[in-house]
Amino acid sequence: MAYGTLSNGSRPGTSQGVDLNADLGEGLGGRQLTDDEALLTMVTSANIACGFHAGDPSTMRRVCALAAARGVRIGAQVSYHDLVGFGRRPMEVPPRELADEVAYQIGALRVFAQAAGTELAYVKPHGALYNRIVWDESQADAVVDGILLTGADLPVLGLPGSAVHRAAAAARLPIVTEAFADRAYRPDGTLVPRTEPGAVISDPEQVIKRSVMMVTEGSVFAATGQRVPVAAESLCLHGDTPGAVELAARVREALIGAGVDIRPFV
Amino acid sequence: MAYGTLSNGSRPGTSQGVDLNADLGEGLGGRQLTDDEALLTMVTSANIACGFHAGDPSTMRRVCALAAARGVRIGAQVSYHDLVGFGRRPMEVPPRELADEVAYQIGALRVFAQAAGTELAYVKPHGALYNRIVWDESQADAVVDGILLTGADLPVLGLPGSAVHRAAAAARLPIVTEAFADRAYRPDGTLVPRTEPGAVISDPEQVIKRSVMMVTEGSVFAATGQRVPVAAESLCLHGDTPGAVELAARVREALIGAGVDIRPFV
Amino acid sequence: MAYGTLSNGSRPGTSQGVDLNADLGEGLGGRQLTDDEALLTMVTSANIACGFHAGDPSTMRRVCALAAARGVRIGAQVSYHDLVGFGRRPMEVPPRELADEVAYQIGALRVFAQAAGTELAYVKPHGALYNRIVWDESQADAVVDGILLTGADLPVLGLPGSAVHRAAAAARLPIVTEAFADRAYRPDGTLVPRTEPGAVISDPEQVIKRSVMMVTEGSVFAATGQRVPVAAESLCLHGDTPGAVELAARVREALIGAGVDIRPFV
Amino acid sequence: MAYGTLSNGSRPGTSQGVDLNADLGEGLGGRQLTDDEALLTMVTSANIACGFHAGDPSTMRRVCALAAARGVRIGAQVSYHDLVGFGRRPMEVPPRELADEVAYQIGALRVFAQAAGTELAYVKPHGALYNRIVWDESQADAVVDGILLTGADLPVLGLPGSAVHRAAAAARLPIVTEAFADRAYRPDGTLVPRTEPGAVISDPEQVIKRSVMMVTEGSVFAATGQRVPVAAESLCLHGDTPGAVELAARVREALIGAGVDIRPFV
Repeated sequence: MAYGTLSNGSRPGTSQGVDLNADLGEGLGGRQLTDDEALLTMVTSANIACGFHAGDPSTMRRVCALAAARGVRIGAQVSYHDLVGFGRRPMEVPPRELADEVAYQIGALRVFAQAAGTELAYVKPHGALYNRIVWDESQADAVVDGILLTGADLPVLGLPGSAVHRAAAAARLPIVTEAFADRAYRPDGTLVPRTEPGAVISDPEQVIKRSVMMVTEGSVFAATGQRVPVAAESLCLHGDTPGAVELAARVREALIGAGVDIRPFV
Repeated sequence: MAYGTLSNGSRPGTSQGVDLNADLGEGLGGRQLTDDEALLTMVTSANIACGFHAGDPSTMRRVCALAAARGVRIGAQVSYHDLVGFGRRPMEVPPRELADEVAYQIGALRVFAQAAGTELAYVKPHGALYNRIVWDESQADAVVDGILLTGADLPVLGLPGSAVHRAAAAARLPIVTEAFADRAYRPDGTLVPRTEPGAVISDPEQVIKRSVMMVTEGSVFAATGQRVPVAAESLCLHGDTPGAVELAARVREALIGAGVDIRPFV
Repeated sequence: MAYGTLSNGSRPGTSQGVDLNADLGEGLGGRQLTDDEALLTMVTSANIACGFHAGDPSTMRRVCALAAARGVRIGAQVSYHDLVGFGRRPMEVPPRELADEVAYQIGALRVFAQAAGTELAYVKPHGALYNRIVWDESQADAVVDGILLTGADLPVLGLPGSAVHRAAAAARLPIVTEAFADRAYRPDGTLVPRTEPGAVISDPEQVIKRSVMMVTEGSVFAATGQRVPVAAESLCLHGDTPGAVELAARVREALIGAGVDIRPFV
Repeated sequence: MAYGTLSNGSRPGTSQGVDLNADLGEGLGGRQLTDDEALLTMVTSANIACGFHAGDPSTMRRVCALAAARGVRIGAQVSYHDLVGFGRRPMEVPPRELADEVAYQIGALRVFAQAAGTELAYVKPHGALYNRIVWDESQADAVVDGILLTGADLPVLGLPGSAVHRAAAAARLPIVTEAFADRAYRPDGTLVPRTEPGAVISDPEQVIKRSVMMVTEGSVFAATGQRVPVAAESLCLHGDTPGAVELAARVREALIGAGVDIRPFV
């Protein structure tokens, strides 16, 4: 984690420790979409849905309690307000409104983190918002403004070099870089969009091999073959696909087998 | 305000001071349904919608800032999750879920109160939830559990003798009694339901006269003619009716003219 | 199916044919909660969510097209407006509003049924609404009023003897009785509520045996041991549990093996 | 109204007849935001909200009944699904999803139009969607696809030369051009965006004068002073501003005084 700077001197990708994060608590109305209990035995950071794309208050409370009991860090997975679209549709929300929506979600989740005896540890935007603030300076600033509004210096999980990381650094908020275990990369270090073929890597062996490479070598092969630097203090595992739990377990084991320490980013 | 007791010995209805509260911030998507600025010059307590029946995050922030700037107390107007029905349709929410929904709303609003340099001062349930917890012990307990979950000893505004006041008292939360300036009462001190004719008193002169009587004499005439004791530490004015602002101003003036001190309940 | 009468003289439970229905299209925002494709190979009637408890427009269109292509009947699975609670929380919706909400959902789904070259074939209320109108005459009347408002004589799937069936019969709407393959019954023919232990039968062998008994003998053993008559023109299978598809296939096979014809109720 | 063509040879702006349209039924949960009864005495076409940006089912039914009783045409005011933002925030909805959302809304409103003894007469997109499909070909196509999905050849109300009119014409749907009584124009015939100063003309005298000029002369003065051709088969009045009803009445009177026939566009 870098405090207010994009260059923290810690060579994150090449260190022998990494944080594992996953999206949890994406249930709604009693339907659980992620195997929260199982995933919480594997990750060190839980991105918990705050009700705008998924996640009802009881799920939020329950997953916060489970995470806290296991020492897993709790992050606010803030989103556009789009329950029907699962937060996957970009919205042109005016920056002032977006900042307030971010603050609202953080405030709501904070109650459940505190009720579980802990504190929110970070913010990770979800879905369309996450992708948007890789490049949209105005919305990136808005997300940071929303965090500042809550009065907490919460780190922002994001892609290295993203607009939201620049905005966070400018506001002297900590930033945490992450990489994606199962996503294809472009040579410039950005992700191949989900709308393109090959965006998601479904072969478990590939996912495992790439995860270890990203963490131990600080780089990965792009879809086009080049080696791309992928600084990663945290590695994102997906929890909502079939076999997600087993794959997460295997990635974790492979990392440990490679001498990597699985630990929270802070 | 009574701390953890239903009998506080302060003879609230006969005191020469009263709090004025009104529902504010009930706009949605930029449409403002209440004249928040004008009403904030008259009330001492603002019940701010938290997004479940009305109130978007930007409205919440804005009205919190306005209230704080004027020294008006901020209360969380928590509701069933029913935006389409404006929170007016009772729901059989399981108590655990209801508690979590209450906590969620309080947490969200708290961010904006704190951003405005103040703290939440109380909770006032809205609409169907308000009416339900006059008698429903289970939901009343759930509302109190939700408040406790937030870690704050927030007073609960409610009808004297209501189930939610008993639950709050049992949990040693402060309670604040309120009366309604423009509602007809039954001999037992409960309100004539809105579904019955004459439930809402629309004649401004009547509203003003009753308001003064309730505060200075601690009683009011029921629809059936009897004098009913109406202990009121706070008087609820309605902000969403035509002429609401002018009527609120006249009630306030009449109270001041009768020697009543308009002041927050705490 | 009985037209405007509760007694149709066809001894449905003892006939050698039965309709199979299941809830489909309960996805939201691209997340599919039911294996619609697989279930559509087994059922003859598809209860499709209409957006009030689940089901976005694209899911509705897609599942309608799949159902139509297979000759599976399309039913409107109308619900209280409670996306967050999956329609499982009873609401005191005023009858006029409830009727309009039912009509709205039917109208929306009808577009997709017609676009798929077919017509809506029936209405099956969902979750809390389904349970409520077993006994609540006012809401039962409202559901029927909503159907009548759409101008279509749609049959209502429901429990034998339910208030909604009485209301439908009084309005001369067709009614269709159904039984539940995996639910425990009380001696009076109503379901053991989900909040009680043993309400849902999870042993596949039991589910299969009971299904065959219900259809071929027209009765089933209540939780308390008595044989209970269970007239069933349609048998409800659940699609949202693990192993649902396999269990549905086995129930279907067992029925066919017992000489039962799997066919639409009309 | 032009059938499947952008040039209908009828010189709409110079004709002595015009349709008047306004947004109605934008209430929610019993709160009425537009004076529907009064406006229905003035307009010939009612754009009725369909529940995605405003408008609950009961409001839809009620306003359809009022419109039908007065012979006012009913149009589906379809919107992005954004109740909290009143449909004012552009969304990147995938075209297939957008088409389905449009069809859903039309299907829902159609039930109430038919229950009132009439049929839907047209579609007018709302807010951010309206502005988006002035230029966004992909979303414009999606809106037209949504209309086609419903199986009805509904005319589309829009700005002359808009992408949605091109898409409608290509699909051989009728198109209806409209002008805005109270909006400033740019020299190219598009509207000055609401985010710029002077976008909305608030001086009633100006609104009246411009309305008459637009209809009788087929042009209006742009904000920059040039005369701009504004072909208008329909003139949009706003119903949600203070004094809206009185202003609508005065515009109507002025048009009649200028010899203009107020009549539906078809």
